[in-house]
Amino acid sequence: MKNFDINEDPHRRYNPLINEWVLVSPHRSKRPWQGQNETVTSDRLPEYDPTCYLCPGNVRANGEVNPAYENAFVFENDFAALKQEEIAFEENKNESFFKAQPERGISRVVCFSPKHNLTLPEMPVVAIENIIQTWQKEYTDLGHVDYINHVQIFENKGSVMGCSNPHPHGQIWAQSSLPTEVEKTQNNLKDYYDKHQSNLLQDYLKEELKLNERIVSENDHFVALVPFWAIWPYETMIISKRHFGKITDFTVAETTAFATILKQLTTKYDNLFETSFPYSSGIHQSPTDGESHPEWQFHMHFYPPLLRSATVKKFMVGYEMMGESQRDITPEKSATVLKEQSDVHYKSKI
Amino acid sequence: MKNFDINEDPHRRYNPLINEWVLVSPHRSKRPWQGQNETVTSDRLPEYDPTCYLCPGNVRANGEVNPAYENAFVFENDFAALKQEEIAFEENKNESFFKAQPERGISRVVCFSPKHNLTLPEMPVVAIENIIQTWQKEYTDLGHVDYINHVQIFENKGSVMGCSNPHPHGQIWAQSSLPTEVEKTQNNLKDYYDKHQSNLLQDYLKEELKLNERIVSENDHFVALVPFWAIWPYETMIISKRHFGKITDFTVAETTAFATILKQLTTKYDNLFETSFPYSSGIHQSPTDGESHPEWQFHMHFYPPLLRSATVKKFMVGYEMMGESQRDITPEKSATVLKEQSDVHYKSKI
Ligand SMILES: O=P(O)(O)O[C@H]1O[C@H](CO)[C@@H](O)[C@H](O)[C@H]1O
Ligand SMILES: O=P(O)(O)O[C@H]1O[C@H](CO)[C@@H](O)[C@H](O)[C@H]1O
Repeated sequence: MKNFDINEDPHRRYNPLINEWVLVSPHRSKRPWQGQNETVTSDRLPEYDPTCYLCPGNVRANGEVNPAYENAFVFENDFAALKQEEIAFEENKNESFFKAQPERGISRVVCFSPKHNLTLPEMPVVAIENIIQTWQKEYTDLGHVDYINHVQIFENKGSVMGCSNPHPHGQIWAQSSLPTEVEKTQNNLKDYYDKHQSNLLQDYLKEELKLNERIVSENDHFVALVPFWAIWPYETMIISKRHFGKITDFTVAETTAFATILKQLTTKYDNLFETSFPYSSGIHQSPTDGESHPEWQFHMHFYPPLLRSATVKKFMVGYEMMGESQRDITPEKSATVLKEQSDVHYKSKI
Repeated sequence: MKNFDINEDPHRRYNPLINEWVLVSPHRSKRPWQGQNETVTSDRLPEYDPTCYLCPGNVRANGEVNPAYENAFVFENDFAALKQEEIAFEENKNESFFKAQPERGISRVVCFSPKHNLTLPEMPVVAIENIIQTWQKEYTDLGHVDYINHVQIFENKGSVMGCSNPHPHGQIWAQSSLPTEVEKTQNNLKDYYDKHQSNLLQDYLKEELKLNERIVSENDHFVALVPFWAIWPYETMIISKRHFGKITDFTVAETTAFATILKQLTTKYDNLFETSFPYSSGIHQSPTDGESHPEWQFHMHFYPPLLRSATVKKFMVGYEMMGESQRDITPEKSATVLKEQSDVHYKSKI
């Protein structure tokens, strides 16, 4: 009988952060593709677009005029999924199949730059530091609102990720409850902490640094790696080397280091298929519920859908929705390919 | 303070099948859309396509020739994510962050019809019965393979769902382990069964039939409804009125009734936006591990992505990936809209 070879044989891997498995099929990466092709976003956008509702000086959907902003600029989402209004509600204590509760929250948009065409990898490190400082301020301000217990910072980049405007921007949805994925993560971090009195991701990071098989980028304070249990073809996670729970714990040096690794990682992404690489990214960190959360560890996820080229993505569909996530290329292979990419953006070379 | 109105106010709903929440933002359905538009699959495909690897008599990627089949036709997937080969493997009993295990399985493709352009809603009921009988045979045959403990029957329909060939077909992935989503469902069904000595979905169905707010279609043996906790805009679930665990438990009358409700539901789907409605569907039922599973209840999920038209879909991206699923239109509204659709296919009226 053939011995198990993780680089060749179909297998499942376990994700201890959310207690789920992923099916890995390394042999399947040779499958031809005759399905849907994605459209590539144009490389040649203007610095200012008079029809863009995020550009400085332009009018938004609700009639407000954007200021002539020069750094990151934050405003309330004009079509927020959450509302600030307090709603009276009596919980039904009986067991019921119709369990619902009102949810209060605040949704904001963070423009990363006044320039319509300047994405993260093309920004100078100091401009990315300014975005990080904006996230810190928002985490603090929103976190201090009495009914807000969780602040979700995220970015949808590229039309394939449901982003309707190429102007570089992210979002923040702050709310009363812990969202499902965050709660799962917290439960697993907590179980690990209770058992080991240490942090799951810190302990994991130490092992990854020793093995050096899935590391994409590293500096004095942060590591970008493809998790052993990644589900998206080029999924990565950024973890800090020091144990802390939230973005406001950054030292000055860590702010610079985080900006640097963000620039590096997103540059490698763009260079991979010489395209403005689509992804959804988001920060997982301590809730703002006023409790101390020693189990938490600040980290950032990148979930990019592209699989083989600028136009062929991975579909998480039938089997993945009904069964479990499935991937073809191994995380080790993805990490190697990403690591090999230049830290100089392909556009700056043209 | 305003009283909670589930039709208007942002809220969360609980899904007892998988123990997750969904954020519902009814007020947000008026949001304008300037993002990506999907391409519409042509309504005018030929009955036979000489370049299609699923049509009768044509050659597949591996050189095999399809027979001149007249009913549903099954073959092994030429690019299977799972392999049948047995792999030697010694489990590492130590706690480790690198938990992996080989996975054995069989992947098959089920062509629904020899006709390249005949999708489920356009087929006569008797042809859909033939597909159901094929699923029954596959569930039995694959389930009897000694190392197979779970048989996942599913369909990806439409290029937006990663389907690379419009020829009507589904897939079956059978494997040793219970996939993540099935295991979650089983755990929750089991907890409910242990507590109440009855089936969660049967009890839920009784409540839904009383309320009659989310029912889309009903006949003597099956009900199609939009679950209270649905995440996709027009998500539905088909549940049998009688309690049984698997597709091979169908009586003859139930086979006809299931074919009828499948035809009705998919016809309503197509009529909604007058397009061949994309979705991923899949059957959840008892595992084939040889145990009796009184907690299980046969049911079928439909996860369709379209939101407002044949070209505008819902994106499950940043917030949804990092936080939790989010929807705009309420399940009650979706059910009403679907229920109102004719049971006569729009194409048969042209
Ligand atoms: O097997 P197919 O149709 O080639 O591929 C499709 O369905 C599979 C199972 O859901 C997915 O893993 C693929 O991403 C998708 O493109
Ligand atoms: O808020 P936006 O950018 O209009 O919308 C985008 O991001 C949201 C949050 O991930 C999603 O709910 C939407 O489906 C997506 O299109």
